Amino acid sequence: MTPRKKLEGLVAATITPMTPDGQINLPVIRQYVDYLVNEQNVKNVFVNGTTGEGLSLSIQERKQLAEEWMCQGKDKLDHVIIHVGALNLPECQELARHAAVIGAGGIAVIAPFFFKPTNKDELVAFLQKIASEAPEVPFYYYHIPPLTGVKIRVEELLDGIKAQIPNFQGVKFSDTDLLDLAQCINKNETGEFEFLYGVDEQLLGALAVGANGAVGSTYNYLGRQTNLMLQAFAKPDLALAQKYQFLTGEFLNFVIKLGFGVAQTKAVMTFVSGIPMGPPRLPLVDASSEFIVKAKAKLDSIVWPDGD
Amino acid sequence: MTPRKKLEGLVAATITPMTPDGQINLPVIRQYVDYLVNEQNVKNVFVNGTTGEGLSLSIQERKQLAEEWMCQGKDKLDHVIIHVGALNLPECQELARHAAVIGAGGIAVIAPFFFKPTNKDELVAFLQKIASEAPEVPFYYYHIPPLTGVKIRVEELLDGIKAQIPNFQGVKFSDTDLLDLAQCINKNETGEFEFLYGVDEQLLGALAVGANGAVGSTYNYLGRQTNLMLQAFAKPDLALAQKYQFLTGEFLNFVIKLGFGVAQTKAVMTFVSGIPMGPPRLPLVDASSEFIVKAKAKLDSIVWPDGD
Amino acid sequence: MTPRKKLEGLVAATITPMTPDGQINLPVIRQYVDYLVNEQNVKNVFVNGTTGEGLSLSIQERKQLAEEWMCQGKDKLDHVIIHVGALNLPECQELARHAAVIGAGGIAVIAPFFFKPTNKDELVAFLQKIASEAPEVPFYYYHIPPLTGVKIRVEELLDGIKAQIPNFQGVKFSDTDLLDLAQCINKNETGEFEFLYGVDEQLLGALAVGANGAVGSTYNYLGRQTNLMLQAFAKPDLALAQKYQFLTGEFLNFVIKLGFGVAQTKAVMTFVSGIPMGPPRLPLVDASSEFIVKAKAKLDSIVWPDGD
Amino acid sequence: MTPRKKLEGLVAATITPMTPDGQINLPVIRQYVDYLVNEQNVKNVFVNGTTGEGLSLSIQERKQLAEEWMCQGKDKLDHVIIHVGALNLPECQELARHAAVIGAGGIAVIAPFFFKPTNKDELVAFLQKIASEAPEVPFYYYHIPPLTGVKIRVEELLDGIKAQIPNFQGVKFSDTDLLDLAQCINKNETGEFEFLYGVDEQLLGALAVGANGAVGSTYNYLGRQTNLMLQAFAKPDLALAQKYQFLTGEFLNFVIKLGFGVAQTKAVMTFVSGIPMGPPRLPLVDASSEFIVKAKAKLDSIVWPDGD
Repeated sequence: MTPRKKLEGLVAATITPMTPDGQINLPVIRQYVDYLVNEQNVKNVFVNGTTGEGLSLSIQERKQLAEEWMCQGKDKLDHVIIHVGALNLPECQELARHAAVIGAGGIAVIAPFFFKPTNKDELVAFLQKIASEAPEVPFYYYHIPPLTGVKIRVEELLDGIKAQIPNFQGVKFSDTDLLDLAQCINKNETGEFEFLYGVDEQLLGALAVGANGAVGSTYNYLGRQTNLMLQAFAKPDLALAQKYQFLTGEFLNFVIKLGFGVAQTKAVMTFVSGIPMGPPRLPLVDASSEFIVKAKAKLDSIVWPDGD
Repeated sequence: MTPRKKLEGLVAATITPMTPDGQINLPVIRQYVDYLVNEQNVKNVFVNGTTGEGLSLSIQERKQLAEEWMCQGKDKLDHVIIHVGALNLPECQELARHAAVIGAGGIAVIAPFFFKPTNKDELVAFLQKIASEAPEVPFYYYHIPPLTGVKIRVEELLDGIKAQIPNFQGVKFSDTDLLDLAQCINKNETGEFEFLYGVDEQLLGALAVGANGAVGSTYNYLGRQTNLMLQAFAKPDLALAQKYQFLTGEFLNFVIKLGFGVAQTKAVMTFVSGIPMGPPRLPLVDASSEFIVKAKAKLDSIVWPDGD
Repeated sequence: MTPRKKLEGLVAATITPMTPDGQINLPVIRQYVDYLVNEQNVKNVFVNGTTGEGLSLSIQERKQLAEEWMCQGKDKLDHVIIHVGALNLPECQELARHAAVIGAGGIAVIAPFFFKPTNKDELVAFLQKIASEAPEVPFYYYHIPPLTGVKIRVEELLDGIKAQIPNFQGVKFSDTDLLDLAQCINKNETGEFEFLYGVDEQLLGALAVGANGAVGSTYNYLGRQTNLMLQAFAKPDLALAQKYQFLTGEFLNFVIKLGFGVAQTKAVMTFVSGIPMGPPRLPLVDASSEFIVKAKAKLDSIVWPDGD
Repeated sequence: MTPRKKLEGLVAATITPMTPDGQINLPVIRQYVDYLVNEQNVKNVFVNGTTGEGLSLSIQERKQLAEEWMCQGKDKLDHVIIHVGALNLPECQELARHAAVIGAGGIAVIAPFFFKPTNKDELVAFLQKIASEAPEVPFYYYHIPPLTGVKIRVEELLDGIKAQIPNFQGVKFSDTDLLDLAQCINKNETGEFEFLYGVDEQLLGALAVGANGAVGSTYNYLGRQTNLMLQAFAKPDLALAQKYQFLTGEFLNFVIKLGFGVAQTKAVMTFVSGIPMGPPRLPLVDASSEFIVKAKAKLDSIVWPDGD
């Protein structure tokens, strides 16, 4: 067995392609993988997460998507992380076992958010029941308090986590609380865990406190530029890194004001990549054509430092 | 076909009995039905809702529970409403079809709350996709903004609803916004819809503006007393009705301060009815024994107006 | 000294008239008093509260307004309650002393909401420091958690309140939590305290659990109709009371959707009463003329049960 | 007239010293100034802000404090910024004029937060009325949405701000939204404005996107160490800067869990500096002695990279 390659850099939170009548569109994924690798220089994916409308899909659809990403990503992608979180434990566990069977590079679980855990122990107990179903698969906690309302501090969660979840590998950290993130990194002196930041529009701030990488939807279509930001930061050429962050931020700031969510992300990815991502599933509804026109014009107007 | 009996009065939001190791405990339901009918004088149930931990169950478990309630409730219960809501449409639709097949007296759907509908049209589009899978079954919208964050006004939803959801029957209205509830009732002059109030601790306020009945967890163990409140209100003997509301409120106010949720409801129902409701499922955890001791003492200390 | 008349029924939360250039317009208050008494049958007022933009006024302006209401209300109004709350204690205390000097019938204090009390003791300590500056004046706590974020339960506050605030008289209860209100009334068996409800659009629900009266902005211009609702409720003719609540609710529901706040209340009062209330003070801005046209048309379209 | 020195680096959000009986303790300020300059290497102050309990003070007290800081800071401090914000415009304007008279180096205004501006224009109109009363004094907007609930984006506010507020100088930016901060800095190419970050525990993230400096309560007692972090970042020695941020974060993370606010800040400053800051004013209450013992032990346990 070859040792696992550490997950660093960018991870695309994958969009789930759909047909015009709202069914998952598996055949598009092959093209999608090639696009990420060749055009965006992104070789890691996070499947069936928020951007992928994972919680709007049936368990059967989630399995099919996981399989297709594993299949098409073979020899092309470095890491395929499957999000197996749901509100009910039995489904999470079934998806975790399935992910293990298909050889996923990692699984991730969002905090349950209808009934919410009220402290670290309750959250860890929930996560443990899932992680233990796939004990050989690296396990990531998906921390996204703005959507879940679960604000249990991650740095607390880390204390003793390995004893309860031996396959614990890291966190997709989607919050603006950099104190918590910094304390996580402070506690991770041995570097055994990975902290992947999930608020794309302020990644530079997270890098400053030591984030290992990033998972986000914008790396589907701004991966190339964000990779250049990572390079500039590593050099370090902070002024250049800022320039990239300012420009990606300028686009995001613009579309956020227009109303920006997963439906709009699908539309943007479609016009940037040329790959038909299709409509979102209810309760989400299609991006308006006005949005698409304006978003495209804005993105086209941006001049990147590398002249592209 | 006998005409449907109008749903009025109390509906117990059923608890899902579980075995000590956390599996659903179907054999208990027969006893549970008899208890509701004979001891609490409650002949309507709402299955797989919030109190029933419906969203913590697998689709298979939800079907089994629905079947058991239909089976045991036959000739004993007046109305069995099955909650078929979930975050993803395919599962909702499958559950709706299943409910129709087993002859449910109604189905109900909670607003999706991960991705949230942002206006009435998006919410109705989601509900319509489910209601249309069981077109002969009365359909209820389950409105619970404190848990979903979906605050679309119900009175807006009603406008034109029959054109889109011909089997629309009413609303489980679990919010303290009595302006919205009153406007719903104002619009329901023909009485075609039913508005069942879902905030047990302030039912009397909802009755004052014309609620048709109530769905709630407390009617599992305080159904008898609440029925006496309904009778007093109908007389009208407002002072007596207030007395009952004050006393049920005194208990609820007391336990809310201790921390009161579905786990605690299971514990209360167990000590009141003697039927073993078992533990909740993660992320919920067992009520503490301290809670149980205090809650029982409080309930025992209350002297009801009928001397019971 | 004649015994104090118990405060019951409606209290108008007064608007502060302003000149076109934004100064307080004292001469209008005489006409305002006569209008409330003669046209709306409202003989109690709550001055310098939320509707009166009390917190947008300087301490000097608040004193002038309090004086003018006391002066013009003499022999015409039953109760003049002056709101003396502010974020800082010295100003609250100065206003309390001033209210005592001018012979106010009561003072009221909102919970501080920049730094917020975190429990009952901290809140009572703050209120006590003010109440004790006007020990002969009946003291009301102004409970409005939707604006202050201070959610300390009022029924808890009542425990032992007389020992700390001997002049404690009651609560302006502006919240939809009728469990808390009902428990307050349950604890008030001797009737020593007054609970005045402050969510106009659901007053009927509060009456059902025993509220003594109501304080609100709508009683400036819908006082007559609301008084008829109170009479119907007292009879009891619940159907007629509901009819009034439905109709006032229909208006409020309509304007709430247009955007309804103190600026809009000023505009409505101006067109209903003919008394020039003037513009609001920044950060509030004038109601739009579109709002005024629509709100007026809606109000004119309503046919009240008494044919008026 | 000597040109104004640009405000960079650290600004201490000053604590307001109080006597044991809760009056402002002016004589302590002389010692306080010397401590900041000599022990913490902090030469800028922000007076009467959140940390200074400005909104809990009377207007007279605020003036006295402003005067004392100006007087004691003469020839010792570089910048004295007086916070003149309040809920009502007349008081803000009076304080602004007073600040101008005493020669303040800047004034700042928080967004009004009882009635809240709902868009940029309403907020700017409010700020303009104050800024224009002190047209020669640099004006700062104090942006702190977690406390005010006013989430108007600062980068929007900047558009055309100089036309309306010619003395606009910058922003105290107390929010974790680094997208907004980055867009502000992106728009400030000429460097005419200053962006001072106000979330001490994640200052490093703000520096990464280009913040000019920082205003915060912790610089009263961790100014020396934070200055070393600024130096490391400027070098750049990011690893060393992180080390400082991790350690200050470790302390803050620890006390936040214990419950950390202005009352606790007063206690920490007292034991670190030896200067008696006294109790807070109601509704705040004294830090517990348990807090003080634990906080002191934690702070003493930290070993800083410079060995101090």
